[in-house]
Amino acid sequence: MTTPRQIRIFDTTLRDGEQSPGCSMNMAEKMEIAQALVDMGVDIIEAGFPIASPGDFEAVRAIADNVSGAVICGLARSNDSDIDRAWEALQNAAQPRIHVFLATSAIHREFKLKMDKDEIIRRAIAGVSRAASYCSDIEFSPEDASRTEVDFLCRVVEAAIKAGATTVNIPDTVGYATPAHMGSVIRALRERVPNMDKAVLSVHCHNDLGLAVANSLAAVENGAGQIECTINGIGERAGNCSLEEVVMALRTRHDVYQVATGIVTQRLVPASRLVSNITGMHVQRNKAIVGRNAFAHEAGIHQDGMLKERTTYEIMRPEDVGLTKADLVLGKHSGRAALADRAKALGYHLSTEQLQTVFEQFKDLADKKKEVYDADIAALIELEMRDAPETWTIANYRLLAETGQAPTVTLTLRRGSDEFTEEVSAGDGPFDAMFRAVERITGIEVVCKDFNVHSVTVGKDALAEVTVEAEHGGDIYRGRGVSTDSVEASVQAFLNAINHVVAHLERSATHSVAPKVVGNV
Amino acid sequence: MTTPRQIRIFDTTLRDGEQSPGCSMNMAEKMEIAQALVDMGVDIIEAGFPIASPGDFEAVRAIADNVSGAVICGLARSNDSDIDRAWEALQNAAQPRIHVFLATSAIHREFKLKMDKDEIIRRAIAGVSRAASYCSDIEFSPEDASRTEVDFLCRVVEAAIKAGATTVNIPDTVGYATPAHMGSVIRALRERVPNMDKAVLSVHCHNDLGLAVANSLAAVENGAGQIECTINGIGERAGNCSLEEVVMALRTRHDVYQVATGIVTQRLVPASRLVSNITGMHVQRNKAIVGRNAFAHEAGIHQDGMLKERTTYEIMRPEDVGLTKADLVLGKHSGRAALADRAKALGYHLSTEQLQTVFEQFKDLADKKKEVYDADIAALIELEMRDAPETWTIANYRLLAETGQAPTVTLTLRRGSDEFTEEVSAGDGPFDAMFRAVERITGIEVVCKDFNVHSVTVGKDALAEVTVEAEHGGDIYRGRGVSTDSVEASVQAFLNAINHVVAHLERSATHSVAPKVVGNV
Repeated sequence: MTTPRQIRIFDTTLRDGEQSPGCSMNMAEKMEIAQALVDMGVDIIEAGFPIASPGDFEAVRAIADNVSGAVICGLARSNDSDIDRAWEALQNAAQPRIHVFLATSAIHREFKLKMDKDEIIRRAIAGVSRAASYCSDIEFSPEDASRTEVDFLCRVVEAAIKAGATTVNIPDTVGYATPAHMGSVIRALRERVPNMDKAVLSVHCHNDLGLAVANSLAAVENGAGQIECTINGIGERAGNCSLEEVVMALRTRHDVYQVATGIVTQRLVPASRLVSNITGMHVQRNKAIVGRNAFAHEAGIHQDGMLKERTTYEIMRPEDVGLTKADLVLGKHSGRAALADRAKALGYHLSTEQLQTVFEQFKDLADKKKEVYDADIAALIELEMRDAPETWTIANYRLLAETGQAPTVTLTLRRGSDEFTEEVSAGDGPFDAMFRAVERITGIEVVCKDFNVHSVTVGKDALAEVTVEAEHGGDIYRGRGVSTDSVEASVQAFLNAINHVVAHLERSATHSVAPKVVGNV
Repeated sequence: MTTPRQIRIFDTTLRDGEQSPGCSMNMAEKMEIAQALVDMGVDIIEAGFPIASPGDFEAVRAIADNVSGAVICGLARSNDSDIDRAWEALQNAAQPRIHVFLATSAIHREFKLKMDKDEIIRRAIAGVSRAASYCSDIEFSPEDASRTEVDFLCRVVEAAIKAGATTVNIPDTVGYATPAHMGSVIRALRERVPNMDKAVLSVHCHNDLGLAVANSLAAVENGAGQIECTINGIGERAGNCSLEEVVMALRTRHDVYQVATGIVTQRLVPASRLVSNITGMHVQRNKAIVGRNAFAHEAGIHQDGMLKERTTYEIMRPEDVGLTKADLVLGKHSGRAALADRAKALGYHLSTEQLQTVFEQFKDLADKKKEVYDADIAALIELEMRDAPETWTIANYRLLAETGQAPTVTLTLRRGSDEFTEEVSAGDGPFDAMFRAVERITGIEVVCKDFNVHSVTVGKDALAEVTVEAEHGGDIYRGRGVSTDSVEASVQAFLNAINHVVAHLERSATHSVAPKVVGNV
């Protein structure tokens, strides 16, 4: 038996995934995800686009400085300042990679870049060479490659490899490719680029037509050695190739693809939950691999078949993707060690102080709730990890709501050692009244773009998790609150969003904030 | 220019989609979806599995009797009683189709059916012949076809066509196929089954590995003339091929596939919203075609490109899938005609009485809320259409909640002309206390499996839509409530679920309810 060809998994949840509307993450959240990706066996982590914003830069630097066990990659356009900034962020990584991109398709050359083919080639060579002067691991992406003339694509790729690119990535930037087409592009490059054996061929697919996974698999069948993907398939528009789907397709159909990845598939469900908790991008129930229904066999006929022989209806085992059947684990008598164990199994890395705080909250919760589930524990940890600015906190509230009358809210918020109270008797419902009281006290008015309460687990005493999206000055701020009391959780979430606005305003007052650039391949 | 080959779109949202855990629909909801499918130009509607339950039977019959403009199909296992029952439900349809299925793969033959190959062939012939004695449009599905030995599959298909099957459907029952494999099965059948030209070849793919759309396209490339799919890709486990994705892939890549469908693509988003509202299966934001972010271009570089030339980043136009950019349409001065117009544009068919009720609620809402959006209107219509049993209704409530104290709820419910009041001072939060009060008054205790509040549109005065999943006696009951007051919407939703329990208990008391069988291809 020969060793199967190894496919590198390049995760871009922290870069392309974070570019999804409403998915921005803070540094602590990015660090947590990066660590989960290492635990899962991802080969390359694209940590961000350093020149995009100071926040992006700091996040890439923090991951490069602190996370080991995977290549840490930063994105850059093919110009000196982008590449220099990327290297500045990456320089302390044990295994740094600079990822340079430049559009190559006719439509991008003409309308976006206003450059001819020779100019594109010169720019690509200049960018890759500069990156190669900093480190040896260089990825080059011809943006919109799938819509680029194949002859020209071959020229660009050959030049980039000659200039020092060790990975060449073929992005289907607008999600336009079909499997046959993507396969033929990869095959053409393998056959026609003379120095192709000096670099790894990679694929980066978007899901606009629902084909990102199939296109990635077609690339692998035709010789690609790296797949770019994200947890839960998050990313711009309809998102990227979903890591969990492409990895499980390669594994389940090993007979067809005959390749291996380094992914510990039992980490897929914990990682999916982590990313969905952090970004607020909920996974639909019928999402393949990680959706709540993915392994639920409803049909009577199915269940009957299942009892007779599992493989009649099951091609993957739930435990292979990290879905534990009974996740009811802790109660009021559980100790700190048991909590630490579950946190670890769920993919979290807590410091001693964090564990202590979460443990105290866990004890409070276990007093109210007989059964504490994995999802409850995850919700508490997420809250602790959030490291949000806490300018304003809740001191106390009183709410009176009655049919046919405007609700009355008396809310006291704390800022430092000062307390401020407002009474509001208005609004269409108790949350509306609460939010108005918060606005009056803090003096910050926002437009509520989205408001969501959901029960973390089952039971009337379940934890409620509330997420709020608020708009202020054209920017979107997300807030999150968790409590068995939904009213409290809602005020927490709203206040959390307001605190983000306050922090932003304070930063803007000290130094002007440049608009964020966002990269794309 | 030659006329492109026409691909029939067979929608099974009402059969395979309804089998998703938590997706059961009542008859009014099924009728509404069937009508939306006709408006969208679907060729065949699989309305249900008549023998599965009396409810399924009645729904198929109602659709067969009342919905015209598409073939109406009912599912049956390959035995006399299933087929007779299917025909009983379908007989008044203008264009009826009986869909007979029987498993053919080795694992199903051995473990589920305990039949040898010859017995399977005899059964298939007997079933198809009986169905063909009732009507001329017969579909046959060899269940688990993609895992069936190709030689045997060819034998079964040839026999079924000889017995009268006019469509032969190839289900990838467990979602195990890859595009190359699915393509090769379809090609083999076209090349090797001598009477294959007498029937339409169809494909039915499940999405367990994220490949349902790609597998369906591969079947079309190899000669399939019908695709089975569902709105939003709902269905067992990870669901079915998503109608909107496969249709838009065929349309957007007409250059590759060179086929046409009869789908009015501008109806895709309205139909998606309808199904997601009715089933409570929310579509994730990054879902292709119909997700909230599917056409959102976040990246700065993208937006710049978009301004210069739309096609740099856009392969489909939002208006082609029915996404209207500005959906802010109505206010307090809008009249009944304007509301009727929007309802029609959103895909609803309202009777004069329904329109009147919705109009009154719309006026109430417009008094509270300056801007009434399409989604608000849809939420009001859904509530009206629900035709839920209304044994218990809310008379009034009073809620007092305060930090650190158990909330106090005084709730009065009405049953007929009687009113019942309970005061509860307990619980972890106001919703918990409310739900306890409802349980005490109605005498029905449930386990709350899921609780969700979400804002239908933007603004602090947005409508809140609440969905509740409650378990009672091993069955799941869904409840839904809509109000600008989230507390009221929550009690409505909880009470709606309880009313479903009451209705079920009353039905059970008069005639015993047989367990529901669920079909599968």
